[in-house]
Formats: sequence, C-alpha cells, structure tokens
Amino acid sequence: MKNIQVSSVFISFYIIVFVTLLFSRAEAQAPQSFIPAPTNIDQSSCPCVLPDNSVFFRVHAPYASHLQIDLAKKYDMEKDEEGYWTVQTEPVDPGFHYYFLIIDGVPVADPASRTFYGTGRMISGIEIPSGSERFFDIKENPHGTVRTHHYYSKVTESWRNLVVYTPPDYENNAEKEFPVVYLQHGGGEDETGWTNQGRVRHILDNLIAEGKAKPMIVVMADGHLPGLPGGYSTSAMENIKKEMTEVIVPFVDAKYRTLQNPRNRAISGLSMGGGQSFYIGLGNLDTFGSVGVFSSGIFGGIRSVPGRTFDAENEIPGLLTKASDFNQKLDVFYLSCGHSDMRIEHTIHAVDTMREHGLDVEFNSFDGDHDWNVWRESFRDFASRLFK
Amino acid sequence: MKNIQVSSVFISFYIIVFVTLLFSRAEAQAPQSFIPAPTNIDQSSCPCVLPDNSVFFRVHAPYASHLQIDLAKKYDMEKDEEGYWTVQTEPVDPGFHYYFLIIDGVPVADPASRTFYGTGRMISGIEIPSGSERFFDIKENPHGTVRTHHYYSKVTESWRNLVVYTPPDYENNAEKEFPVVYLQHGGGEDETGWTNQGRVRHILDNLIAEGKAKPMIVVMADGHLPGLPGGYSTSAMENIKKEMTEVIVPFVDAKYRTLQNPRNRAISGLSMGGGQSFYIGLGNLDTFGSVGVFSSGIFGGIRSVPGRTFDAENEIPGLLTKASDFNQKLDVFYLSCGHSDMRIEHTIHAVDTMREHGLDVEFNSFDGDHDWNVWRESFRDFASRLFK
Repeated sequence: MKNIQVSSVFISFYIIVFVTLLFSRAEAQAPQSFIPAPTNIDQSSCPCVLPDNSVFFRVHAPYASHLQIDLAKKYDMEKDEEGYWTVQTEPVDPGFHYYFLIIDGVPVADPASRTFYGTGRMISGIEIPSGSERFFDIKENPHGTVRTHHYYSKVTESWRNLVVYTPPDYENNAEKEFPVVYLQHGGGEDETGWTNQGRVRHILDNLIAEGKAKPMIVVMADGHLPGLPGGYSTSAMENIKKEMTEVIVPFVDAKYRTLQNPRNRAISGLSMGGGQSFYIGLGNLDTFGSVGVFSSGIFGGIRSVPGRTFDAENEIPGLLTKASDFNQKLDVFYLSCGHSDMRIEHTIHAVDTMREHGLDVEFNSFDGDHDWNVWRESFRDFASRLFK
Repeated sequence: MKNIQVSSVFISFYIIVFVTLLFSRAEAQAPQSFIPAPTNIDQSSCPCVLPDNSVFFRVHAPYASHLQIDLAKKYDMEKDEEGYWTVQTEPVDPGFHYYFLIIDGVPVADPASRTFYGTGRMISGIEIPSGSERFFDIKENPHGTVRTHHYYSKVTESWRNLVVYTPPDYENNAEKEFPVVYLQHGGGEDETGWTNQGRVRHILDNLIAEGKAKPMIVVMADGHLPGLPGGYSTSAMENIKKEMTEVIVPFVDAKYRTLQNPRNRAISGLSMGGGQSFYIGLGNLDTFGSVGVFSSGIFGGIRSVPGRTFDAENEIPGLLTKASDFNQKLDVFYLSCGHSDMRIEHTIHAVDTMREHGLDVEFNSFDGDHDWNVWRESFRDFASRLFK
C-alpha cells in the first residue's frame, strides 16, 4: 500500500507537470491577450484575465458530463474534442472574489487556484488585477510580520488559532508599546480571512509608511466557536464576548507589548464580525475605545430575524438616550457598507437615527457589494482614523 | 451581478449548513463507532476514522456518475438512492496522508477536509489519530510562534514568502541570540509544508520543554523558484544555493537575533529539499555546520537520471578523499529514510560508502514510506542532535 502511495503522489505530480505542458501547448487556442490570475497555483496559466476583466477558465475533464464556473453567477463550460472544458465569463470587478468549479453538480475548489477558507469550507479565490498599484499591494516599504499562535480557550475547552500582525517597528524597539485593533472575519470565514483575502498586512504596511496610520498591532481571531451557538443570537454574542474579553485580550496583553487601555484598543469586523464588534465593543467601553462595523446585517433583520427592526437602545441600553456618555468614552465609532450591498439602506438608516440622538457616528461607503473589496477599503479607512 | 454574488456566497453557506444537517441525519447509516478526522472542516462529520483506522467517506453528488477516493490507492465509491456516495477504505497508518476526491475522473480537494499545498496544488489531507498523545501533538508546554514574511528575491526577481518558527523564549529575552535550522520541503510542496503537514512547531515546543532540543529558530523557505529550472539539475541546485546563501540567510540574520556562525546554523530538508540541503550545506561549510538529508532521491538515480550511480566525491569534491576535513567542519551530518521507501537501499549504500571513507555520518530509519510520518520523525531526531 505504501509504495502505491508514494507512486500515487509522485505520479500525480508528474501528471500535473505533463498536463501543464499540454496546457501551454493548448494555449494557442486560448485568448491572445491575457494574464494568469495572481491567485493561480504556480504552474497554472488558467484561469486568466482578459483586458476587459472577463476571466477565461479551462479544465481537463474528459469523463465529466457538465462543468460550470460559479463566479458571481453560474457559467456553463463547453467541452472540446480533447476533453478540455472552457468558458469566458462576463467582465468581473477588480479585486478578490470567491468562486467554485462545479463538476457534475458538485461545487469544489478549482485545482488551478489557491484556496481560502470561506462559506464554511475551502473555496477557490481569484484576484482580478486592477492594472495599477493599489493600497493592498505589497510595496517596497518596511514590512510588518504576521504571526500565528495557539491558545487554549476555556469557552470552547479546546486549542484555537489566533493570527496577529505586528507593525514594522515592533521588533526594532524592545521597549515600545503599541495600540491594538481586534479584527473579526465574516460568517463562514475564519481567522485567516483578513490576512489571506483581506491583505491586511499590506494595507497597514502601506498606511504606516505613508504616515496615514499609527503603527498598531492587529489581532484576528476565529469568530466561530465550535460546539456553541453561532451567528447573531444573543447566546452566540455572549459566548464570543466572553471569548474575546476573558480569553483573547488577556492572552494578547500578556504576549505582546500592548498599550492596555481603551484609548488604545479597538474592535472591528465585517458582516457577522461587525455584529460581534458592535455588541462586544459598545458593551465593553472600559475595554474598547473604538468600534468599527463593516457591512453588518445587524441594522436590519437583526440577529437573523427577518423584518425585525433594529432598535439601538434595546440592543445597547443608553446608546440613544445617553448618547453623550457614549461619545465621551468612544474615540471612533465607525460604520461602513458597500454601495451595492442590500444592507446599505438599513445601515444608513441606523446611522441617521443614532446621529439624530446625538451619537457621534462616522460613516463611509464604497463601490462594491458584500465583498472583500469593500472590506479592504473599510479597514484602510477605519485604521487611518484610529489612535489619533 | 453583485447581488447574485452575495446571494450565491451566502446561499452556498446556508446550503452547506443544510447539507451538514442532512449529513447528521444520514449519520445513522454511517458506521456506529467512528471519530471525525482532525483535518475535517469544522462542521464535517465525514471523513471519519473507524477503530481499525479504516476511513469512511461520504460525498453528496446525485448527478455524478463515478466517484473515487485516492488515499494511498484508489477506492470506488458507491451511490445510494439519495445521491450519497460512500466508501470505507482499508486500514490506514496513523499520521498525515494526502488524498484526492475524484469526480468523474477529475482529482479535486474534498470540500469536507482542510487543504494543503502538495503535489504542486492544493490537495486534501487527512490526519489519522494514533489513539495516544504523540510528539507532534500540541501540549500544555510554552509555545513558540510561527511568523510569515515577504522578502524580495534578486534570484527570481519577485516577492517570496518565508515561514519562521521562533522558540517560546525568543520574546522573553530581548538580548538572547539563537541557533537557526533551515528546513526545506519536498518537490511539489512549499514553505507551508513543514508547519501544516509537518507540525514542526509542536515537535520543537515539545522537544524544548522536555530538554531534548536546544531552543532554535527554524526557517522554512519555498524551494521552487518560479521561472527557473527546478528539481535536481545542476542549475536548479545552483539557483537555490544562491537564493539560500545570498538572499535568505542574510534576510534572516538581519531580521532575527541569530547566532551567526556555522556551529549554530544547520540546513536540512526532505526529498528534493534533502537534495538541496546536501548540495547547499556540504558546499558551504563556512555557512552551515550541520546538514540533514531526509528521504532524498539523490543517493540513487541522482538528479533525475534513472540508473545513474551516486558518486559522492564527484558531487562534493573531497567528501570521500578528504573526509577528515569535512568531519572537522561538520557538527552533524545526518541521513534518514522510511523503512518502506524505495530510496532506503540507495541511502544505506551511500551511508556505508561514506563511512568506509571515514566520513562521520549519522543515520536513522523509521517505519513508513515516502511520507510525512517519516519526516516528522526525521526532524524530531535531527533537531534533538543539533547545537549540542
């Protein structure tokens, strides 16, 4: 059995090299002007991006009867006589997108692309280049470091992962202490999302180099607690609040040179993680002095109850009636949403209501939907307002 | 299109939750006594491991016509009337194994499992528990940190990734300097292999806690140089030698508190990475004082030329004829191989030949084939001999 395993893995490797060669030969049939997506596995020439930002896919599957690409919408692929299936999508917005390859009805990760943890599983991602250097691209600035830790959680009674970004000068000055922003992913994602999909390390390296953000530590935790209720329910919010305030913050403050006061501690997140930040942050203003809520569904159909109206005062007692108390304790209370996100109306309504009651709310919106392009923009915007 | 994307991703998430519920209901039909594999995505109950270490797989694919699992060998799955395909494998050795799900002839990553970079792509991995705590399991010891960096390579003229483990007390003593072991992955893998598949952080945390290894830094680089010749060719070895000695070692020495002399610098690797370590290490004894070569093909059919005999003196001039010079400079020269690996005979022959010429060679072999279980054992063994 063992020898078969060896040969299996190594033969697979050589088959891949061989198929890659085949691909390069077959490339003559592919669109003339294209670039391989940056998210491709090293040897893959497909998927490739055409000048109009449509994407060309090719998959070898001579024995399958129906192949599709699900990238924003489903595209049927067409098979040639050599068993290669191809399709060219409509133009796709620059930036990061999840996608599936669907083989005879089964959605899987495309072997040609990097995988990312999203929608509760490993899923393909594609980065559509914008044609010019962006704020989330790696540049020749001083670079921070991304570290991974395991910590034991008394909430889940298990070992859990934590991802931490430290700014470029964290290592250079052994005495200096830094502010910290806690940054939560969305539903179905995990603690790797903000690094892999969100490119938070490049965003901060660039902001810091340009003098647009204070050097800060970013802590990215897993917002799903296995074995415990998830989503937006009250018990889910109580559990993640306990995990954050009683386990993660003390772990980080013990492990890193942090400034340990609310003026130097922020919490933020996207979608479900935005909801977590709203409840954990506004409910613990002696711990967190700034709160960022990106693209969260809590402002309409809160806690997964469709049609239920967001009642800020009910969710966080005093938020409307004692707004000045909150203003005094909050440095930055920030909301954002994508222009095309179905959450935008509810979010703007919540911002208006809170402002009418005298609460200081900062708000911004960006081109895009419920997607990582809006979240990269949101974090850039939020981070540049923090710790000033 | 955007709205479709949102719904697509979120509907997918809910579909997954729904399918998971279906799975749990269908579990009644699954083997009675099983545990989900530790490599499963959170909500997956399959694949699951039975008491005899056979593995039960279940995949929902009502429209596919042929499903297989490739785990050491290919197993045909059988479909029930609800469209669930199942199979139970033969018993599998405890430890880590790559595997594929094959849908109508297309090998893909199983959506139910974590993916790993292996065989030149993202591939499923399964960890078969051994039933007792092992040296590569996380324990309640002080834990080191794994960091990722980007560095610019003048060899490939591109940004590249580097993974670095620092031992538990690296942070506690801002003055202390540490020895470094460079640790290379195998062909078709990348710089993440030793952390994700190899569990090097737990292995070292445990060894250090037990006093069996010196606290050391581990540097894991990507041994594939995109756009340049790969494998075992002379030019590939020259390129990776240049990358290692002129780019990576200086980057690490500038970034970390390292002991910068050959007595405190080792290089090692598995398979292709073992070959790299042999050439880079023995060819640069003013840089590296210890060399570890795990399961490498170089000792037979060297440099991908089948049947070509390994000629140590030709590969590293003086290695046999001036063995005492090498002995003087080398602290540890270590080879290892799996008992069932087809490379074992050539490796033992090479060890015998080198020893006959007076070269000090340390050798060990382990149960297993050309697989991560042997490489975890090899690194544990090698690390515990270093820097003494």
